Amino acid sequence: MKFSRTFIPTLREVPADAVIASHRLMFRAGMIRKLANGLFAYLPLGLRSFRKVEQIIREEMDAIGALEIKPTVVVPGELWKESGRWDAYGDALLRAKNRLGGDLVVSPTAEEAFTALVRDELSSYRQLPLTFYQINTKYRDEIRPRYGVMRGREFVMKDAYSFHTGDESLDRVYQDMGRAYRRIFKRCGLTVIPVQADSGAMGGSGSEDFMVESEIGDNTLLLCRDCDYAANVEKASCKPDYEVPASRASDIPAVEKIATPAVKTIEDLCVFLKTDAKRFIKTLIYRVVNVELDLSGADGTIKPERSPAASGPAVYPEAFFAVAIRGDLEVNEVKLASALKAAEVALASDADVKRLTGAPVGFAGPVGLTAIPVIADESVVALTDAVTGALAQDLHYAHVSYARDFTPWLVTDLRTVKAGDRCPRCGGGLYEKKGNELGHIFKLGRKYAVPMGVHYLDEAGQTQIPTMGCYGIGLDRAVASVIEEHHDDAGIIWPMTLAPYQAAIIPIKYAGAVKATADGLAASLEAVGIETLLDDRDERPGVKFNDADLIGIPYRVVVGDKNLAQAKVEVKRRGQAESRLVDAAKATEELTGLVYGEMGELNR
Amino acid sequence: MKFSRTFIPTLREVPADAVIASHRLMFRAGMIRKLANGLFAYLPLGLRSFRKVEQIIREEMDAIGALEIKPTVVVPGELWKESGRWDAYGDALLRAKNRLGGDLVVSPTAEEAFTALVRDELSSYRQLPLTFYQINTKYRDEIRPRYGVMRGREFVMKDAYSFHTGDESLDRVYQDMGRAYRRIFKRCGLTVIPVQADSGAMGGSGSEDFMVESEIGDNTLLLCRDCDYAANVEKASCKPDYEVPASRASDIPAVEKIATPAVKTIEDLCVFLKTDAKRFIKTLIYRVVNVELDLSGADGTIKPERSPAASGPAVYPEAFFAVAIRGDLEVNEVKLASALKAAEVALASDADVKRLTGAPVGFAGPVGLTAIPVIADESVVALTDAVTGALAQDLHYAHVSYARDFTPWLVTDLRTVKAGDRCPRCGGGLYEKKGNELGHIFKLGRKYAVPMGVHYLDEAGQTQIPTMGCYGIGLDRAVASVIEEHHDDAGIIWPMTLAPYQAAIIPIKYAGAVKATADGLAASLEAVGIETLLDDRDERPGVKFNDADLIGIPYRVVVGDKNLAQAKVEVKRRGQAESRLVDAAKATEELTGLVYGEMGELNR
Repeated sequence: MKFSRTFIPTLREVPADAVIASHRLMFRAGMIRKLANGLFAYLPLGLRSFRKVEQIIREEMDAIGALEIKPTVVVPGELWKESGRWDAYGDALLRAKNRLGGDLVVSPTAEEAFTALVRDELSSYRQLPLTFYQINTKYRDEIRPRYGVMRGREFVMKDAYSFHTGDESLDRVYQDMGRAYRRIFKRCGLTVIPVQADSGAMGGSGSEDFMVESEIGDNTLLLCRDCDYAANVEKASCKPDYEVPASRASDIPAVEKIATPAVKTIEDLCVFLKTDAKRFIKTLIYRVVNVELDLSGADGTIKPERSPAASGPAVYPEAFFAVAIRGDLEVNEVKLASALKAAEVALASDADVKRLTGAPVGFAGPVGLTAIPVIADESVVALTDAVTGALAQDLHYAHVSYARDFTPWLVTDLRTVKAGDRCPRCGGGLYEKKGNELGHIFKLGRKYAVPMGVHYLDEAGQTQIPTMGCYGIGLDRAVASVIEEHHDDAGIIWPMTLAPYQAAIIPIKYAGAVKATADGLAASLEAVGIETLLDDRDERPGVKFNDADLIGIPYRVVVGDKNLAQAKVEVKRRGQAESRLVDAAKATEELTGLVYGEMGELNR
Repeated sequence: MKFSRTFIPTLREVPADAVIASHRLMFRAGMIRKLANGLFAYLPLGLRSFRKVEQIIREEMDAIGALEIKPTVVVPGELWKESGRWDAYGDALLRAKNRLGGDLVVSPTAEEAFTALVRDELSSYRQLPLTFYQINTKYRDEIRPRYGVMRGREFVMKDAYSFHTGDESLDRVYQDMGRAYRRIFKRCGLTVIPVQADSGAMGGSGSEDFMVESEIGDNTLLLCRDCDYAANVEKASCKPDYEVPASRASDIPAVEKIATPAVKTIEDLCVFLKTDAKRFIKTLIYRVVNVELDLSGADGTIKPERSPAASGPAVYPEAFFAVAIRGDLEVNEVKLASALKAAEVALASDADVKRLTGAPVGFAGPVGLTAIPVIADESVVALTDAVTGALAQDLHYAHVSYARDFTPWLVTDLRTVKAGDRCPRCGGGLYEKKGNELGHIFKLGRKYAVPMGVHYLDEAGQTQIPTMGCYGIGLDRAVASVIEEHHDDAGIIWPMTLAPYQAAIIPIKYAGAVKATADGLAASLEAVGIETLLDDRDERPGVKFNDADLIGIPYRVVVGDKNLAQAKVEVKRRGQAESRLVDAAKATEELTGLVYGEMGELNR
């Protein structure tokens, strides 16, 4: 392809809002342009790399037997009402009305559409398992789209959905997907961190996130220095940094009420009592929405009322809990929501705290709290002589001992793990990284199949509900992440598999023998399948060199009179400092070996 | 591919609303399923053929130097307000609001997005011409979606837009596109009728429609029996079926007022006056909206007022015209709108007719009409002794002669051509066909560039506005049209280029030597690049044969014990009655020749 025949509007300037390298470079290299906030158009150069990512994903999906289909991007709102997400998804769901007033959704994800399609086709266990995927446009009305295509409103996602008779079959496809994802990222030249993730609003259990390290990442990851443990902070656990006493010591003084006037925070209290936060039981009151967990046997005189949900299982629309944790630790609200199978958790209002504990905020504690259930983090179990709020203003209890003085309704892991905690697997030190999610695989279970009424007959002729898995990769974010990982000050350094062109031919002056050699070389490279950009522009060599570096083409071949006098051309690998002279007659052969060698290495 | 590993849910039944062959067969063959009215999902089989159409289009666009880009499907409403189509496009435009209340459009076409992108990049004439295309999702909120994917609400279109310094450059790309479209349809095995089309609401002049004949076609086409003339009725012209007298005869009696009591229609009048409709001047009063044509010099005492449009050129928001045409002919309103450069034309209300002509409907005529301009069809020029309304109830004029008794403000071609009229090119007889539009190429001119403010500097440093072309093909409709043209009672008969699989291997019973031969054959066919469907299902041979016929796979290879004893397999071309026995060992070689032979023929 001649440079003059395509459209690569390279730029020196960058837009003011382009704060990360991929956004800057995609813009400067003429890969993308902005149509509106969060809406980007791919120009010819950008689309070439984009399509290569698409093709790699397609090949790896096909290789594990997933079947490509193409549902619509715009789907009936009815399907989202059936699943319950019409209400639950919030403002990120772009809704529209057709001319008859019917509700439509511009798909942000496609559980509903795939589930509806399979529902209509499924009759027998013999049809299962089934795995379908699409590579298609999605739209999410992000509050703050930014970082270019890294967080756009419209984007392309590969999303796959699998349907199974049981957990074993689901796990097999889940494992296949995990392997396929690792291959996809390897082929794209991406270093990913596979982490255990909480599946959050998507529901279900068993999920893995594929993260790339990023200074602007949405996620905090905890990684072990000694083993390959990696987890999202939302789900990370750690080895206990305490010992639970084998027997409860009998020498702890009885609980004693102490005055703590004008003491507001745990830090104040530490100073006031000359002790440290690890000796405190911090107690927080949470208001929790749509709790699925059965609370009928829970402690507390205020019994939440259960009401049948519009779709899905019955829930408690509102319930309150006291959450106790060691004073130096933070409650992980995702873990709390997960333990309660709840849609939302948030600290209760001051008024609710007062109503439920009889004291203003700051004086809650598990001892003598009767209105609502107490949930304790595991760290609390080890506390035998602790301080906690006394349910009255300016009063605390000292010498509080777990089990002796209070018994929580539920004890579970609720702590927020942080750098310096110990790896739950090997005990090594954990450290933190920021990461962006590139892909996510997870076991959905029957979250959609139940409310949407998907059924099949099993071998015994009994009606059954299939279990499902769900597997996504964002293509735009993958392209941007590759650039984040592979660039330098001069521009992009494409992995061979994704390079928009694998070779750039730069004639010093596109005329005479130089032109003839450049043309011949371009033709012979293209004949062996090497995508070649021939810079035929009437520009200074420096401009051409800079553009080739910016665009990130792996091999640059400079054709000039001086070297051509010795029948040589100059070959340089992008990202390497040195160029070398190669016989013009052998350049194609040599580049073929280099290009296909690198390609094979990545695709291996 | 093994049949059991993909998902091809063939059916005997068809949905009640599937009235055309392609809809029935795409549904029965398991190519598509309906998600909602006008919204269809492609299943794996359907997607394979769909992708082949996509690839053919992409190759032919690339071959003429068009550059693929990918704007978003959802675009800001602001762009549509700039072009004026936010209001003009009507209810087919799907609108949505983002979370901040901003207007969004789910693109039904993309003139705005492409024009906006080019506007931001264009500075110099040196960058032109530029031709960009996309193959992307579109949505039109059709009033009555039907015929399956032939007229769905969501669909995929290849749409290209070109930008030029002048008409010559535009015409060159326009011609290239015309040739590319012919190649695309040929490669798809489609017989298309290229017709001159009125460009309708898209504006501009110079346009060609690529139609396929269809019983349910939206368009009426007029074709010549003797030459290759073909035109949409909206734009068709014909040789005059009259002679304009060289000199005006002086022997025509003077105009005479005649009483025509209780005569309402031209037919009644013919009976009453014992003459025929060709001797009448029918005069219709039209109300016309948003007239761009300069009316300042037009006849008529009622002068329409010109007002600047919100965008684009100044227009007359409302104007009235009397349209005179020979009594046996019908006014072509598309021609009328085009002659007036108007957005809409419609017969005036009874009240307006009364107000403007002084008589009730049925008695208008050009003689003595002073309130509004008279526009005459060319047929009127030949009338020298005609009857027409006398602008008073129950009165007509006889002996009316063009020029002597009235002079229209404008004479132009306004007649609706019909079967039996004479070809404008060769004089041969015209006949009618119903057709569906598959593709459309047209010269947009500056319709978008002007209101959207696209500029460049020419060689002299002067600011200029580029002229544009616009070129679309509907992919879904192309797939359906191929099936309309290539099927029989048993199912689809795919052209080799679009077949989802080129060969089907049907083992009579998938076991033993038959299985081994079938597996071997599948592997060797796939090794030479022939896409093969191996029917490994435990079904009766009749079921497998029927499915292969329904799906329309070009070559069927039956492997059975009996023939295998002679080392033979049975090969049959879909659509042909006879099968033949082929040496099992030579089957791959033979099929390779057949498949690539047919492919080469179509792609030639």
